[in-house]
Amino acid sequence: MESQIPEVVIDRLPLYARALALLEKENIEIVSSQELGAMVQMTPAQIRKDLSYFGRFGKQGRGYNVQTLRGELLQILGLDRQWSMALVGVGRLGRALISYGGFVPQGFRIVAAFDTDPRQIGRKVGELVVQDVSKLSSTIKERGINIVIVAVPPPHVQKVTDELVGYGVKAILNYAPAAARVPSGVKVREIDPVLALQSMTFYLK
Amino acid sequence: MESQIPEVVIDRLPLYARALALLEKENIEIVSSQELGAMVQMTPAQIRKDLSYFGRFGKQGRGYNVQTLRGELLQILGLDRQWSMALVGVGRLGRALISYGGFVPQGFRIVAAFDTDPRQIGRKVGELVVQDVSKLSSTIKERGINIVIVAVPPPHVQKVTDELVGYGVKAILNYAPAAARVPSGVKVREIDPVLALQSMTFYLK
Repeated sequence: MESQIPEVVIDRLPLYARALALLEKENIEIVSSQELGAMVQMTPAQIRKDLSYFGRFGKQGRGYNVQTLRGELLQILGLDRQWSMALVGVGRLGRALISYGGFVPQGFRIVAAFDTDPRQIGRKVGELVVQDVSKLSSTIKERGINIVIVAVPPPHVQKVTDELVGYGVKAILNYAPAAARVPSGVKVREIDPVLALQSMTFYLK
Repeated sequence: MESQIPEVVIDRLPLYARALALLEKENIEIVSSQELGAMVQMTPAQIRKDLSYFGRFGKQGRGYNVQTLRGELLQILGLDRQWSMALVGVGRLGRALISYGGFVPQGFRIVAAFDTDPRQIGRKVGELVVQDVSKLSSTIKERGINIVIVAVPPPHVQKVTDELVGYGVKAILNYAPAAARVPSGVKVREIDPVLALQSMTFYLK
């Protein structure tokens, strides 16, 4: 089934889950596709279509049960568990990511950090001791790491990404302002603040 | 005109511009809506519809001229100029953002940095000297700052955002793992790595 679902649909499910979490916090039990659409800037028809890939969630004319739908989405997305992540690149950005408070409450945890710089290796950052990248492959295997965050300088992004792909890593979060090519079957998401800025300047002209 | 264009359309234009920049780099002169769609994971029909808000760019059956379309998009988005930004919050993340190499090549520059912590104020980070937040209002006015990056701890996000709105700031890039409410007419974009992670776990299950 999974290969038939467009990636853009999968990309939207976390947005729906986040909106539903907000509604749940406000003790709202039922939400219509209109209301949910307004929260995530989608048409009701698109939301119904996206959800239809995964079966029937709402009853015609009755809306969705907030808690049930959120639970289903979390399960579909694999967010009903904890995910261990490694970080490659412990420069300024990498150190900031180790102390970033947004990951753990959402089930994501950086459990190992790596660098090539001898001045960084062995250094303690938060709860972690920075390791030599030569330990990356064995640590990924031993710790059951599924996701790797890349925060290395742009010229090293492709080389690091290729290594990670070679070690069997299937999900990479790239913080460097440089794109990385990966074979199909490996997912990369870029954190690109410039795209976000570029979508606001239109309104500032 | 601007108010009639859906925000989701504006959000997609930077993606198109980025894809066109890649094509231009490869000396490709003409691109079809099919090819462009494949690059940004959109249908050709959606691309044609998005661009139709801004006039006619392509000739029927001939595709788009890469350079021309990119130039038009940059102009529409207000990206044919430089933008000055301020940073509020010079903790680990804020310091990493000051040294982030992705902003300047795209026409965005952090020209002032602010904090409330007396240990940070007066400290030099990169080319900038951290200022007391009490200077925020006057600096925004004097330096013609249009965009403010917020990298403060989550509990302070709303208060800082309210202050910025009070100073007339219309565009805020929020790095804190906490949402900020703003009145209509003010744009906020959140850098949320968790959403990016949540769109990959589906494939890891």
